[in-house]
Amino acid sequence: MLGHLLTVGDEILLGQIVNTNAAWLGERLAEVGVDVRRSETVGDDIGVIAGALDRAYRDGAALVVVTGGLGPTHDDVTKAAVARVFGRELEVRPDVLGWIEARYTTRGRTMPAVGRIMAEVPAGFDALPNPKGTAPGLWGERVLDGRRQLVAVMPGVPHEMEAISEGSVLPRLVALQDAVVLSRTLRTVGTGESDLAAMIGEIVGALPDDLTLAYLPSLGEVRVRVTARGADRDAARRDLDTATDAIRDVLGTTVYGEGATTLEAVVHGMLRERGLRLAVAESCTGGAISARLTAVPGASASFLGGVTAYSNESKVDLLGVPAEVIEAEGAVSEPVALALAASARARFGADVGVATTGVAGPTGGTPDKPVGTVWVAFDRAETSRAVRLQFTTDRAVNVALSATAALDLVRRQLLRGRAGPASSAGPAS
Amino acid sequence: MLGHLLTVGDEILLGQIVNTNAAWLGERLAEVGVDVRRSETVGDDIGVIAGALDRAYRDGAALVVVTGGLGPTHDDVTKAAVARVFGRELEVRPDVLGWIEARYTTRGRTMPAVGRIMAEVPAGFDALPNPKGTAPGLWGERVLDGRRQLVAVMPGVPHEMEAISEGSVLPRLVALQDAVVLSRTLRTVGTGESDLAAMIGEIVGALPDDLTLAYLPSLGEVRVRVTARGADRDAARRDLDTATDAIRDVLGTTVYGEGATTLEAVVHGMLRERGLRLAVAESCTGGAISARLTAVPGASASFLGGVTAYSNESKVDLLGVPAEVIEAEGAVSEPVALALAASARARFGADVGVATTGVAGPTGGTPDKPVGTVWVAFDRAETSRAVRLQFTTDRAVNVALSATAALDLVRRQLLRGRAGPASSAGPAS
Repeated sequence: MLGHLLTVGDEILLGQIVNTNAAWLGERLAEVGVDVRRSETVGDDIGVIAGALDRAYRDGAALVVVTGGLGPTHDDVTKAAVARVFGRELEVRPDVLGWIEARYTTRGRTMPAVGRIMAEVPAGFDALPNPKGTAPGLWGERVLDGRRQLVAVMPGVPHEMEAISEGSVLPRLVALQDAVVLSRTLRTVGTGESDLAAMIGEIVGALPDDLTLAYLPSLGEVRVRVTARGADRDAARRDLDTATDAIRDVLGTTVYGEGATTLEAVVHGMLRERGLRLAVAESCTGGAISARLTAVPGASASFLGGVTAYSNESKVDLLGVPAEVIEAEGAVSEPVALALAASARARFGADVGVATTGVAGPTGGTPDKPVGTVWVAFDRAETSRAVRLQFTTDRAVNVALSATAALDLVRRQLLRGRAGPASSAGPAS
Repeated sequence: MLGHLLTVGDEILLGQIVNTNAAWLGERLAEVGVDVRRSETVGDDIGVIAGALDRAYRDGAALVVVTGGLGPTHDDVTKAAVARVFGRELEVRPDVLGWIEARYTTRGRTMPAVGRIMAEVPAGFDALPNPKGTAPGLWGERVLDGRRQLVAVMPGVPHEMEAISEGSVLPRLVALQDAVVLSRTLRTVGTGESDLAAMIGEIVGALPDDLTLAYLPSLGEVRVRVTARGADRDAARRDLDTATDAIRDVLGTTVYGEGATTLEAVVHGMLRERGLRLAVAESCTGGAISARLTAVPGASASFLGGVTAYSNESKVDLLGVPAEVIEAEGAVSEPVALALAASARARFGADVGVATTGVAGPTGGTPDKPVGTVWVAFDRAETSRAVRLQFTTDRAVNVALSATAALDLVRRQLLRGRAGPASSAGPAS
């Protein structure tokens, strides 16, 4: 199915807001078999919106997904533009008015007069429940020149748009296609896209026709998504699971999780499972590891805290790293990294310590330790381990990659702890 | 001048990359008087790109800014599409070839064969130097049906696009307009858009015709941008400075800086000026303050480090907060916030300590201290101060707003220190 994204909002054109909805929808629509050919942003103007919608259908779109401009103010003209293109009147829908009233009354408030505006729906359209906000989504269909044309309209607030997409729009699109679309996403860390492709090339080359595979890279991570499409749900599920399990076997510990999880959430889960508590000592990451770990709700169950030891004095005074080791080896060195990890564990009374020390840049590099040189270290009662990494010349990238490497070192060491006797001699991966 | 943004790339349509370039360009083009009416993303297809470009001019665009698809691989077809629309041949430009060769030789490498492809420029176009990468930008013009039509083409890599925009594209657009466009941006923190508008309403109502004002809100901050356009540079500069200085006077300490700075960079600058060093103790912000402070290059000159004291034990053991105070008042309380700030200062041997403690959510709230309750505290030898804030029910939003509030508390207290005798009795703002 050919699709077109239409984003409405002066604030997007003016660059006051980055359009993250387009990326989110682009990825999800591709998953359910919609081929998005064009993504377009226009301002809050009824004629311009109607013109863009008309043109999308003339260009062959079978589906246009419109976001933004669904609020109750005079700037919000998306609904009127859609109604005009589809030749429908706006009518107050009693059930939608009920949803909106209920949203106010459960908060102990009275619905304002504008609530009725939000309950208006183009005649013949379906209203889609908005579990995260007030304005409902809209779903309309028509047949023009023998072609079926669909429109899905959602608010621009990202979590409302995502909730309506997942609750209503994506399931309807799947149902329309006379086919089930199932997918599984493996989340990998520490291996680049081309290396992953080489590792699983044989499996990918032999995938059944109903399966497709995509690599979705981001900083330090690559998601591998396998999608199955077919008329028979059981067959699609079987093919998907067979292929994904085979890929997971080959990729081994490079895969840290599936679906919508994060590396920090996985580390928290492993710590909780094992009854362990973590503390961190950060130099070059400057608090980024702590910030990621505490972004996970319920973090306090397995994270005790951390020290950002940015100065050498704080490494010595707060964490007890011997000054002579820093003097002899430099702050960016294996013994300092190990001492920081051990000290974090000891000071917080934790079971596991992890630490970073490195040259984040943009200055401070030397021939031996250029910008991007980073040590990450892990410490537990019976084992410790440090790894040297070489990243980029970009400070923000180095911080992000170092934090990911530190979290991944914890994950891999905990996996080893389960698999057999611990050792400090083996490779990290 | 009517403008149109055209972004090229399958990876954008598929949602693998968020299109941050469109927001950056939207804001900068508005500043130089380009009225962006449409922003469009299409895939790596020569016919589709050429069609979108043609259509933009037919719709009245005097300028199309194209980004992406300028690399050396077979996917990169933007240059060919632009050359087709403008009816020009691609030709290897010797000076551009020289730039590209120099870029390789200064890195001790030999230019690969594809270097010549990147040196191809449509006949009659200008090549724009790319200080951050290999592929040059392009600038073309034509007159069609009596209308002057411009195209600026740049690589999709954000820092390359930004460098070419600032070095070549934006100055050319300003020069073209027979008018100078000057702007100043005041960065404010802690006051919402509507309150700011009320504070400066009188000045804004009386602005001269050549000036416009925009509010650009983001989490916890609002930028106020004043833009002057006119034929006479001196007059525009004078009007701009008069108005902006008047607004700055009224907004007072709500303004923390101008232009492209950040709150954390301003705090670093104030600390350095005063010869002071800072340490932090973070509970609910979980490392976010440290992470923001250390994201500033050269942070170690004024930031000693921090402790993320996530558990109550770590508040007691590492930072010496009396257990009975936590017991009596709860961890989210004024005395605990003040004790954390004082302890951070003492433990790191810093001049200034700052701390946070709060209920980040999504759970953990009580009737007295609902989710979003946060204390931020400041400690210095002669003064200490704590402020209670009430934010939202969203964990990530609460962390970000708390970190901003803590940095702003440091800023305001340092300003008071300069302005007169310190006191712990006055308001924070």
